[in-house]
Amino acid sequence: MKFDLIIIGNELLNGKIQDKNAHFLAKLLHSQGHDLRSVHIIKDDYQEFSQVLDHVQDKTEFVITTGGLGPTKDDKTKDFLCEYFQKKAVFNQNALDTTIKQYKRNNREYDQEVMNYHYLPSDFIPLYNPSGYAPGFMYTASSLSIASTPGIPSEFQAMIEEVLSKIERPNSHTKHIIFKTWKLPESHIFGKMEPELWEKLEDFGEVSSLPHKLGVDIGVKMTANSEEVLSELEVNLKKLFFQTSLKDFIWHVGAESLEEVIIQKAKAKNITFGFAESCTGGLCASRITDVSGSSAVFWGSVVSYANEVKMQILDVKGETLNSVGAVSKETALEMAIGARGQMQTDIVITTTGIAGPGGG
Amino acid sequence: MKFDLIIIGNELLNGKIQDKNAHFLAKLLHSQGHDLRSVHIIKDDYQEFSQVLDHVQDKTEFVITTGGLGPTKDDKTKDFLCEYFQKKAVFNQNALDTTIKQYKRNNREYDQEVMNYHYLPSDFIPLYNPSGYAPGFMYTASSLSIASTPGIPSEFQAMIEEVLSKIERPNSHTKHIIFKTWKLPESHIFGKMEPELWEKLEDFGEVSSLPHKLGVDIGVKMTANSEEVLSELEVNLKKLFFQTSLKDFIWHVGAESLEEVIIQKAKAKNITFGFAESCTGGLCASRITDVSGSSAVFWGSVVSYANEVKMQILDVKGETLNSVGAVSKETALEMAIGARGQMQTDIVITTTGIAGPGGG
Repeated sequence: MKFDLIIIGNELLNGKIQDKNAHFLAKLLHSQGHDLRSVHIIKDDYQEFSQVLDHVQDKTEFVITTGGLGPTKDDKTKDFLCEYFQKKAVFNQNALDTTIKQYKRNNREYDQEVMNYHYLPSDFIPLYNPSGYAPGFMYTASSLSIASTPGIPSEFQAMIEEVLSKIERPNSHTKHIIFKTWKLPESHIFGKMEPELWEKLEDFGEVSSLPHKLGVDIGVKMTANSEEVLSELEVNLKKLFFQTSLKDFIWHVGAESLEEVIIQKAKAKNITFGFAESCTGGLCASRITDVSGSSAVFWGSVVSYANEVKMQILDVKGETLNSVGAVSKETALEMAIGARGQMQTDIVITTTGIAGPGGG
Repeated sequence: MKFDLIIIGNELLNGKIQDKNAHFLAKLLHSQGHDLRSVHIIKDDYQEFSQVLDHVQDKTEFVITTGGLGPTKDDKTKDFLCEYFQKKAVFNQNALDTTIKQYKRNNREYDQEVMNYHYLPSDFIPLYNPSGYAPGFMYTASSLSIASTPGIPSEFQAMIEEVLSKIERPNSHTKHIIFKTWKLPESHIFGKMEPELWEKLEDFGEVSSLPHKLGVDIGVKMTANSEEVLSELEVNLKKLFFQTSLKDFIWHVGAESLEEVIIQKAKAKNITFGFAESCTGGLCASRITDVSGSSAVFWGSVVSYANEVKMQILDVKGETLNSVGAVSKETALEMAIGARGQMQTDIVITTTGIAGPGGG
């Protein structure tokens, strides 16, 4: 199914907050075989809203809007939808009931005089908001559905998962295989090394190439009528790939992140590990613990931002810090030895360097 | 000046990567008094591109596009621009010179046969790319400028800062004052508590209200012809605000984040602090060390994800863990005492709880 997302809110365009909903929706739709066609971030302005909706509505099947459903005067999405679809805001018993329930759950009383959560554009049905107050709402015209949710990520995510659970998934079977390479620039891969690779991969499906800090991810999205055909395609695609000169530069085949691969491999080898971090300031530990199940192999990190902590917890020698400084191989080694002694993990990885936002 | 951003790339719409450029640009433009009107994320598709550009071009003064400038077949932005503005891709000596220089800096040779970075749409001028290979380019028609840069954040950011440094800043003086409140839901603030506040604030400028996990941020964007008038407005606005019933619920006046306020206050009081983290897994330390200058007051964190680390480094008693568990007041207290003994900071803040992605 084709989806388009319209994000409404001045606070996104003046940099006060960063949108997180587009990426969440993109991943979710992709995992379910749907297609996110486009994302538009616009101001609280009816003309902008109507023009963007005009622009997407004949190309899509489902429009999702987020934002502008709160109780303040800059929350205008309900008015926009009434005007666009020529509806009136009408009393909705269902919306009232679920809103009262939400308020009760939080030991608060719903004030009908002040709030207007129980008024919805006519013909729209309310969407239950499990983690906030304002209900969303949804409308299905002949060829287009539209669902509106609050912009707060936890509310958006819960409501969208609920909406999608009711939509039938596409019949065709798709699989996205990603070959993660490193050490090679994109231009070199598709230039000198494998000038015909792109065309060859296109025989299998839609090809993409994504360069980033860790290397270049080459993806192939395959579609087939059955799982059997798909499996066969996958085997042949991998065979092709591992016959190219790229074979020694692939660090992973799959969609998993580096953090996920680290956790997987540590589990498979029954290895525990930890960090002694200086310049990364806890970021390594934070990213590892973002992975579900990391606690089985990851034991912890000593973030020694100050030299005092390096000396006191990690037993780095004052002499080492004075003679070669904190950013040195010698200090890094003493940090690692100290942390392994303290944490008793199989492996400790140390980071040291100059990485602050003002640093070099 | 009015800006619109068009982000081109299938990898953003299938969830492979999360866009970071829109938020960067929004903050940067806002800080310089410019206006980001809208953001559009679209696929590598000419029809989508031309329609979005049609849609924004008569309402804006400056269009920025990112993405689609690399060397692979899914990089089509140059073709799109040629078609849209009826230009041919022509050899550009300047683009060739700077590209060769970039390759040399990285000890690589630029292969003119394979790459076409030195071909630009005619009448476009190249933009130097200080941290990558592909140059950007820019074009100014009578009433519209358009600049295209690669999508990789470090390249985008450096090039956009360079472009903006050449644009005159607006003459009017603006100031965005943000009152950060806590403990009160948005509906209560503008409902029962202060039903007339919104209108009163509108006398000063554009009002916004942003609810999030920490509370509700109420912002007023004021514009004046001189700094003197602006300062006077600011004094009166603050006076008004601190006469309302919200005065006891304001934790900060200003645009600073919680992390920045913590660092500021610790510096002002000459207090050092650290963390003993369990469930947050290094996130607290990571967010504090994201703030420039945090090392003056933040000494470190012991991320004790495993109970072994709590016992070994923080001297939490095995008995405590066995009797009341890791997620308990008793364990939290022992972690704090242990960490303060180890780090010798004035304050240690402990986190414990169940917060994993699969947790409750």
